[in-house]
Amino acid sequence: MDIMYFEDIEVGQKRVKSLTYQVKKEEIIQFARHWDPRTFHIDEAAAVSSVFGGLVACSAHIFSILSWFGTHGNRRTASMAALGFDELHMHHPVRPDDTLSCCFTTLEKHESRSKQDRGIVRTLASLFNQQSIEVFSAIIITMVAKRSR
Amino acid sequence: MDIMYFEDIEVGQKRVKSLTYQVKKEEIIQFARHWDPRTFHIDEAAAVSSVFGGLVACSAHIFSILSWFGTHGNRRTASMAALGFDELHMHHPVRPDDTLSCCFTTLEKHESRSKQDRGIVRTLASLFNQQSIEVFSAIIITMVAKRSR
Repeated sequence: MDIMYFEDIEVGQKRVKSLTYQVKKEEIIQFARHWDPRTFHIDEAAAVSSVFGGLVACSAHIFSILSWFGTHGNRRTASMAALGFDELHMHHPVRPDDTLSCCFTTLEKHESRSKQDRGIVRTLASLFNQQSIEVFSAIIITMVAKRSR
Repeated sequence: MDIMYFEDIEVGQKRVKSLTYQVKKEEIIQFARHWDPRTFHIDEAAAVSSVFGGLVACSAHIFSILSWFGTHGNRRTASMAALGFDELHMHHPVRPDDTLSCCFTTLEKHESRSKQDRGIVRTLASLFNQQSIEVFSAIIITMVAKRSR
């Protein structure tokens, strides 16, 4: 596995993940039934009369898929902790059988003020569906380990 | 069930949810094994040498627990769609057996410009553990239905 340490990360660098994630209807319903059981996430028939016009994945599910991209496939970051997230936008509904791809762009990095072995990185993450429509984006603030610890 | 429509929501209003959520170790591991399989979320022994000093819930899990609070217990909002989230902060680790409580505070509301049957609400959500330490906060931007549709 190819690990990216703080030193390896370049501001402006764009990384398209090598994997895609197919969102199955059963998973949409199963996830939302426990965490966010609103009609338009769990009831296919009733979802038709919602603003979405059909079943859509809940935001916690989409957020979880973003985490999945961060921890699977090529070039993972040596993340020590997620500190926070900003500007999460649900641009477009995620529907059954959508196949999502993911792109990470480094916006900013700086050394930790208190600890020499790490830095803070701000990354823009975007999820796209199979029609290249951006469905979700967020800024991730991560504590990343240095190689030279 | 007591539903809060757009008209019922008062800016500055604070609502402490009537329920709590206990985060079990098995759930932390099971959730993270699929969505965010980093050592400090899935391997109790190895997590000891992480910055957390032990097993902690992953951010997608905490985000999902926030969704759970939004859809369970007293006084649910007539949410039509989640539009986005801002300023998500992981203030403090969520550890096995933590019992979380939740407080929502309405920051802002305004009518939709294009549709008369709805409005947009910005809500600050905070999760606290059993020691009243704030573990997580986020601003939720929601499209909320009016009663008078």
